[in-house]
Amino acid sequence: MKDTTTVYQHGTLAMLVVGLFEGTLPVSELVKHGDMGIGTANDFDGEVVIVDGTVYQVVESGQVNVLGPSDTVPFASVNYYEPQVKEAVQNINSTQVQTKIEEDHQLGNYFAAITMRGTFKHMHTRVVPKQSKPYPMLSEAIKVQPEFTRDNVSGTIVGYYAPYLFQGATVGGFHLHFINDDHDFGGHILDFEIDQAQLEVQELENLLQHLPVTDKNFRSANLNLANMNEEIESAEH
Amino acid sequence: MKDTTTVYQHGTLAMLVVGLFEGTLPVSELVKHGDMGIGTANDFDGEVVIVDGTVYQVVESGQVNVLGPSDTVPFASVNYYEPQVKEAVQNINSTQVQTKIEEDHQLGNYFAAITMRGTFKHMHTRVVPKQSKPYPMLSEAIKVQPEFTRDNVSGTIVGYYAPYLFQGATVGGFHLHFINDDHDFGGHILDFEIDQAQLEVQELENLLQHLPVTDKNFRSANLNLANMNEEIESAEH
Repeated sequence: MKDTTTVYQHGTLAMLVVGLFEGTLPVSELVKHGDMGIGTANDFDGEVVIVDGTVYQVVESGQVNVLGPSDTVPFASVNYYEPQVKEAVQNINSTQVQTKIEEDHQLGNYFAAITMRGTFKHMHTRVVPKQSKPYPMLSEAIKVQPEFTRDNVSGTIVGYYAPYLFQGATVGGFHLHFINDDHDFGGHILDFEIDQAQLEVQELENLLQHLPVTDKNFRSANLNLANMNEEIESAEH
Repeated sequence: MKDTTTVYQHGTLAMLVVGLFEGTLPVSELVKHGDMGIGTANDFDGEVVIVDGTVYQVVESGQVNVLGPSDTVPFASVNYYEPQVKEAVQNINSTQVQTKIEEDHQLGNYFAAITMRGTFKHMHTRVVPKQSKPYPMLSEAIKVQPEFTRDNVSGTIVGYYAPYLFQGATVGGFHLHFINDDHDFGGHILDFEIDQAQLEVQELENLLQHLPVTDKNFRSANLNLANMNEEIESAEH
């Protein structure tokens, strides 16, 4: 039976901060834990958006690929989607809708999966550029990130709210990715404005944090940076 | 089939820091996720040690009780024990054996379950005192904590190593409890000296973090204290 109470996460954000960009989990394993989610790909190559079991990868050119079972990811979160609340929202921007979700669901201390499907007056994304070995630190890797905007676009926002207590393991607060219905535009969301969309929220009682314990680079990395929070804040927001 | 790759944790250390001491999970549920572990009981009433499926509670008088299925816990970690490494250790103190485990297993970035069964030249524990409502903050609750020592005692150390990245969710580094074979002495370990013991270590690739999402007090608590790390360091070490 599919577990709809848990967000499964492979890898941690802290691993990306120190440049552990190599894929350590095949997509075939990832999708055993959920049919919707977000992440990045091997070599930190773009923004991953998982919708209805398909694993889309938006790369720095703006192109959208579909990852196959043997492709790997260093960091991704997925869940089996079964929202408790579905509602129509319209004429609302990203800041407003996030405040609405936080208030309606008393977000703060637990995990939630969020989707918004519909039409957007405006969508503004960015895409992390592919890295090569020897990998730099995150702060270096994201110095130049392509940004993309599109108006009047139909598509799906997929993402999570995570308690700030788990900042470092993951992104504290909202972390949302986008893929359009034509599958030629998407990325890590910077801001957006909804025309009309179906907002769905699934409260989750579990985080299943999976770590690549047999990976040599992971085992020997120093993930206890004194400035971890600052690195994350500057990278993710 | 029992999952031997995961440490299951109910609640977080941060919840204790802000005084969420009420039990939010029955023991009957907790023991579905493991047969060994540590925690505390409803009302922050003592130190819990789970050995071979029995849930012992060491209370502030020093007395040891056994918790029943309907007793509840606010915070506990358990796993199904299947150590990959078993070895005899002797004439080694707590600092030395922890350094040995850290080096032998390259601890730092992943979770591990640890037991040491045998005879101890010296064992020094403390036990958190039961609290009543309205609960104080952790720093107030543990201002006076009974300490206990015993020489030449046989028993079992049970506990975990957790990456410091998860400090706040849990205790970063080693967190060890003790129960003696006669079941009349134990607690949260401050220091010890091994005469001879079997050391067993189980590397774990998953943390399953469970949160009491339906608990009103949990949902409304402010768990984002600026001084969370300081509170934890002063409380747990």
